[in-house]
Amino acid sequence: MNVFDEHETLKQLGEFGLIERIAGLFEPASDKEFTGIGDDCAVLRNDSGRSTLITTDMLLQGRHFRREWSSANDLGYKSLAVNLSDISAMGGTPRYALLSIGLPLDIAPAWIDGFLNETRRLCETHGVKLIGGDTSKSGSLIISYTVLGFIEDKKILWRSSAKAGDKIGLIGKVGESGAGLRLLEGSHNKEIPTHRYLIEAHNRPRLYVDEARFLADSGFVHAMIDLSDGIQSDAGHIAKRSGVTLIIDTNLLPISDILTDVCDTFSWSAEEIALTGGEDYALMFTFDREKENTLKNQIRENFPDTGFTVIGEVKERDGNADVRFLKNGETFELQQHGFDQFKTD
Amino acid sequence: MNVFDEHETLKQLGEFGLIERIAGLFEPASDKEFTGIGDDCAVLRNDSGRSTLITTDMLLQGRHFRREWSSANDLGYKSLAVNLSDISAMGGTPRYALLSIGLPLDIAPAWIDGFLNETRRLCETHGVKLIGGDTSKSGSLIISYTVLGFIEDKKILWRSSAKAGDKIGLIGKVGESGAGLRLLEGSHNKEIPTHRYLIEAHNRPRLYVDEARFLADSGFVHAMIDLSDGIQSDAGHIAKRSGVTLIIDTNLLPISDILTDVCDTFSWSAEEIALTGGEDYALMFTFDREKENTLKNQIRENFPDTGFTVIGEVKERDGNADVRFLKNGETFELQQHGFDQFKTD
Repeated sequence: MNVFDEHETLKQLGEFGLIERIAGLFEPASDKEFTGIGDDCAVLRNDSGRSTLITTDMLLQGRHFRREWSSANDLGYKSLAVNLSDISAMGGTPRYALLSIGLPLDIAPAWIDGFLNETRRLCETHGVKLIGGDTSKSGSLIISYTVLGFIEDKKILWRSSAKAGDKIGLIGKVGESGAGLRLLEGSHNKEIPTHRYLIEAHNRPRLYVDEARFLADSGFVHAMIDLSDGIQSDAGHIAKRSGVTLIIDTNLLPISDILTDVCDTFSWSAEEIALTGGEDYALMFTFDREKENTLKNQIRENFPDTGFTVIGEVKERDGNADVRFLKNGETFELQQHGFDQFKTD
Repeated sequence: MNVFDEHETLKQLGEFGLIERIAGLFEPASDKEFTGIGDDCAVLRNDSGRSTLITTDMLLQGRHFRREWSSANDLGYKSLAVNLSDISAMGGTPRYALLSIGLPLDIAPAWIDGFLNETRRLCETHGVKLIGGDTSKSGSLIISYTVLGFIEDKKILWRSSAKAGDKIGLIGKVGESGAGLRLLEGSHNKEIPTHRYLIEAHNRPRLYVDEARFLADSGFVHAMIDLSDGIQSDAGHIAKRSGVTLIIDTNLLPISDILTDVCDTFSWSAEEIALTGGEDYALMFTFDREKENTLKNQIRENFPDTGFTVIGEVKERDGNADVRFLKNGETFELQQHGFDQFKTD
């Protein structure tokens, strides 16, 4: 049994194609004891009605980060944070982490110290224990985490649970990380305060661990995902898994004034960046439309510093459409498409 | 709090030094719910008296393997096998795997197919489910597994449980993988049947999953480890953790005739290779000396194709000595020492 069709290349198949084929090769992808490839985390059911959530993410120097753009402390934060966010994306509480790290022999001890101390701070903030890992000499930096979390079985927020009629909510902001990355990539002044703010959003994305648990506890939320690949791609994951179409109104996106100002300066489209930029680690979820006001009030009360926005709604499956975007009531066609690392040189 | 002392480099600190410092930074390394860094696996205690074992291992092209020495199928086998072996080393049963893989864009689809199909075969042989992972574009191959297994709490075979008076047992053979690696490294004829046999031992180390579970069930075994770094280094881990000294008689090592013959041809020391070569993935364990004959008979009966050898005994801590080697009744001094990737250029 082969993953590739005859004459097919990795570049043609792409990242999501490869993952789908691997999932097909290792069937069954789930049974009564586990749910495998296809959501933010794998899920293992324990006897006690509590499930273990497991996620793993590998960050490579030159692909996912650059030393000149992110400090040791930034990377210590972000490399763990993106994994904690995956646990949050299903409503769980992160508890344990394993860190495998490839280190160039000539790396400064101060770099390792900065990286590990920031990791420790983030672990302490969230009560996460570092319980294992692996170290290796490597030509360039490799940072690979596995994180485990826990949740009651019946509270798990699956990608596949969106229902036609749901509204689509968003916790956090979108586009700032993508704009920060553009600023790093270009020859822009990185010391202007608004630029620094956006670069910080890219290097230190805010986590919504408590908010995620609150949403899982509320009983109003059906499906959830964290925005790692961008709204377009991540909304597509919910739509495909749930067999529905997501309608997102770009006029409602929580785009900050700073992002708008910087985009105006460079004639960038803030919507494009918000929809395709990725790495915001905001939480996108679908919920019972009857509960919109209740949810809004509860979030304001419990998390006064956290933004909650309704950005669209879920419809019955509409032909081949995973996601439709609107702007000023009209269909909004994206110029760019989600990033696929194997399809992009 | 810093990992490095002033002016200390990664090369000076070394792999085991780095791991020890990291463990110190992330205290507590264990509490009533988990046991972290320091054994073959991390251990999470469940409510039901059953523990989850977790291990992770990262293999890098050019460091841990070379494409010209190991086929796609070999790597599909070995990269997972070394993780299954870590679960066995504590007596557990491997159940779930997550695979993170970095792939060069120009890798042949046939390579990926070979790798994944061999992975699938090994998963099926041991009832292991692939439940997740990550894929990334990478300049060279990166293969990082996390494997989870299960065991009853009271049956866990810790590195720290060796007792003075125990005998030291070994399941499997030693030195063949190390000799196979030497053959690959040198400009030796790789097609001679004895050479091919040793290279196969390096690329496809035999696993002892059922034997490990049997040893954990027996109640006679106190401490166990799998031989990944070589007897010298791995016996040292048991000695340090248990606060004892291990006395190993090199005359008793299970060295095959093929290994002896090939070592004679090249004037290699089979003992040196057996003690420092590593990657044999044999099981080394300490057990109640009263049960030697019972254990021998039970292993012969249950696993007729598996070699069991008694190679030494455990003594009260003898000064600074972790491990002492004997040859013909005299102290045997090793010429080489265990491999530390950060200390070796």
